[in-house]
Amino acid sequence: MTRVATVPPVAEESATGLVAEVYADIRRTKGIDRVPNLWRVLATNPAHLELVWSRLKAVMHPEGGRLTPRERELIALAVSATNGCAYCVNSHTAALRKLGVDVETLGEALAVVGMFNTTNALADGYQIEPDILPPLE
Amino acid sequence: MTRVATVPPVAEESATGLVAEVYADIRRTKGIDRVPNLWRVLATNPAHLELVWSRLKAVMHPEGGRLTPRERELIALAVSATNGCAYCVNSHTAALRKLGVDVETLGEALAVVGMFNTTNALADGYQIEPDILPPLE
Amino acid sequence: MTRVATVPPVAEESATGLVAEVYADIRRTKGIDRVPNLWRVLATNPAHLELVWSRLKAVMHPEGGRLTPRERELIALAVSATNGCAYCVNSHTAALRKLGVDVETLGEALAVVGMFNTTNALADGYQIEPDILPPLE
Amino acid sequence: MTRVATVPPVAEESATGLVAEVYADIRRTKGIDRVPNLWRVLATNPAHLELVWSRLKAVMHPEGGRLTPRERELIALAVSATNGCAYCVNSHTAALRKLGVDVETLGEALAVVGMFNTTNALADGYQIEPDILPPLE
Amino acid sequence: MTRVATVPPVAEESATGLVAEVYADIRRTKGIDRVPNLWRVLATNPAHLELVWSRLKAVMHPEGGRLTPRERELIALAVSATNGCAYCVNSHTAALRKLGVDVETLGEALAVVGMFNTTNALADGYQIEPDILPPLE
Amino acid sequence: MTRVATVPPVAEESATGLVAEVYADIRRTKGIDRVPNLWRVLATNPAHLELVWSRLKAVMHPEGGRLTPRERELIALAVSATNGCAYCVNSHTAALRKLGVDVETLGEALAVVGMFNTTNALADGYQIEPDILPPLE
Repeated sequence: MTRVATVPPVAEESATGLVAEVYADIRRTKGIDRVPNLWRVLATNPAHLELVWSRLKAVMHPEGGRLTPRERELIALAVSATNGCAYCVNSHTAALRKLGVDVETLGEALAVVGMFNTTNALADGYQIEPDILPPLE
Repeated sequence: MTRVATVPPVAEESATGLVAEVYADIRRTKGIDRVPNLWRVLATNPAHLELVWSRLKAVMHPEGGRLTPRERELIALAVSATNGCAYCVNSHTAALRKLGVDVETLGEALAVVGMFNTTNALADGYQIEPDILPPLE
Repeated sequence: MTRVATVPPVAEESATGLVAEVYADIRRTKGIDRVPNLWRVLATNPAHLELVWSRLKAVMHPEGGRLTPRERELIALAVSATNGCAYCVNSHTAALRKLGVDVETLGEALAVVGMFNTTNALADGYQIEPDILPPLE
Repeated sequence: MTRVATVPPVAEESATGLVAEVYADIRRTKGIDRVPNLWRVLATNPAHLELVWSRLKAVMHPEGGRLTPRERELIALAVSATNGCAYCVNSHTAALRKLGVDVETLGEALAVVGMFNTTNALADGYQIEPDILPPLE
Repeated sequence: MTRVATVPPVAEESATGLVAEVYADIRRTKGIDRVPNLWRVLATNPAHLELVWSRLKAVMHPEGGRLTPRERELIALAVSATNGCAYCVNSHTAALRKLGVDVETLGEALAVVGMFNTTNALADGYQIEPDILPPLE
Repeated sequence: MTRVATVPPVAEESATGLVAEVYADIRRTKGIDRVPNLWRVLATNPAHLELVWSRLKAVMHPEGGRLTPRERELIALAVSATNGCAYCVNSHTAALRKLGVDVETLGEALAVVGMFNTTNALADGYQIEPDILPPLE
């Protein structure tokens, strides 16, 4: 069996019980044939797998959400690029491409990500006080 | 004079030359009356002020951009929340409110930010290998 | 000679003086046969090698410590997963396994790491003020 | 009403429906009289409040958990100190004190946090390759 | 064609217009024969390529700058090691070596980087208040 | 007694034994009259105080160091701004001012910090492979 990461992942054919149920829901919800590596590794603790998946499903596939799927994936890429997470950058770039985002638009998104990593460092590097805010009711 | 941050900011009434020009462009481009603290502090090095402002203007107010202003500000908030930058969180939350984003939608956006800070830590914490990507041409 | 990282590491057989002494102390203290890559690379600056090793030894192998070895390694993994450091995640996961932590317990630990990377992003993303603390005398 | 953070929090006396239920569960589970600021702010999006609280409850107060409450809070503090989150550092330090952790033990824990923020930076700063791992089955 | 990263880079021989101009300026300014991978990937959005390159050129190769080239590269390495960015650590280590920084001096620089990643975590982990500063006029 | 941070600091007049010795060495080495807050808080665990101070002294005040004091403080500021640590940014900005760094030069330094927080995010956001390095012997 192929090893992935620091613990051996749970292959789809050997999944039973709660793990098999979550795997089936992942394939159905995302419309994919293969369960991605993240979930195979989380399956080494089935309760945690269920916890993370059900939360991600609620956050990314809500009924009547106020954000578009593209907005959600752009945020996901922004977080992942800022944290420098290789797995997540690959995953969310692929998701954005699937949503029809072309390479130039991806460049615009990463330009924004890059820009605010600069201003964050500058605002913190000078310890700049927030401007007075209008009440945000 | 009021002190801001680790260096004394340049007040609008004492700005001259390049600093005065940039301040005027900031007010005009953003449609605001008061130059925010970030730019007043950057003005202590006028060349740097011009460099950051012209870049931010190009990234956030491009002609014919492929992302919406709301998408840009959502990315900015995602980066700032992930980095924990107080100045920038306040600034981009205010910008989103100005664009008509209500408090519940803000909650959805931060739910996505929070979610992927978890999955980033999990993917890195288990050192999970990226799934095979389709060519992203 | 095999290259490791951005500088050539110091092999055990070519170590002399301070480097050889530190290498011996690492093998003895950790009960291992091979000096890990981190120390081989730090050995390119012997004074720095000694400084980091003696500090790590004091922090991780103290006499009369108030934390258990497992607590120390759990903290080490939490920091490394949050920072996304591949070398350190691998190293501290191996150390936890050696201490008898099984894969399901590791899943619980990373569940906690993941959870608080979310609440950190939310607390910072909303700029939430600390609750009033009881005096921590 | 006092403002907290970038959005107005939901006071306990004005909570209804799902928010009131979650608030009651927080007080009961944590054995406290006052709902902390984090939850009051998350309540501006009730579905998100419920999602984060139910996950945090499962992660921090599981039945038959393999980690001790002290181990969980040490991990929480390690993550929060590494991310520099003021709200969370205050909250988890208070939780550790409540669990009987004295100031010297807290110092040991933060010594470990500090140590591995150094080694993470060194391992990444030299791009050190992971040592060969024993299979972690 | 070889794939680099999540998007296909623009090879030097197929570059035209703005991309070809920027590539030529990179080779000339840096005195190198081959355009590094970063710029080949940014070239997938030519306007972004030009924006980042012109800013980096102004920041790293200014006329009459007050910092030495070595100081600039030391800062670049410090940021990159702290963020754990593999590409950038490799790039700035090579630049420092080109400037004559030997392996022992590199060790001193990373010792400083490592040290302050500790004190940052400690200052944040205890929420230590800044000392009163003398006015920094 | 004034409270600082999450634990009560050790005032200079109540310091005894190891803490008093370290306090005296801090005042002597840095040529200052007042022990900064960081050390007063670390003094709540005397062994940890001694460990951090002796390492910081070795790293920042070495005999025959290859980096200048200004280079060391620039690296310290770069790390602190990137991590967004308020205490440390204030402290290292004051140290740079004491070394004669004026406000414009500080602007140049933070321009470099800001720039590479962008390129780090871009290199990670596109998962760009390192260029082939010349051997760094």
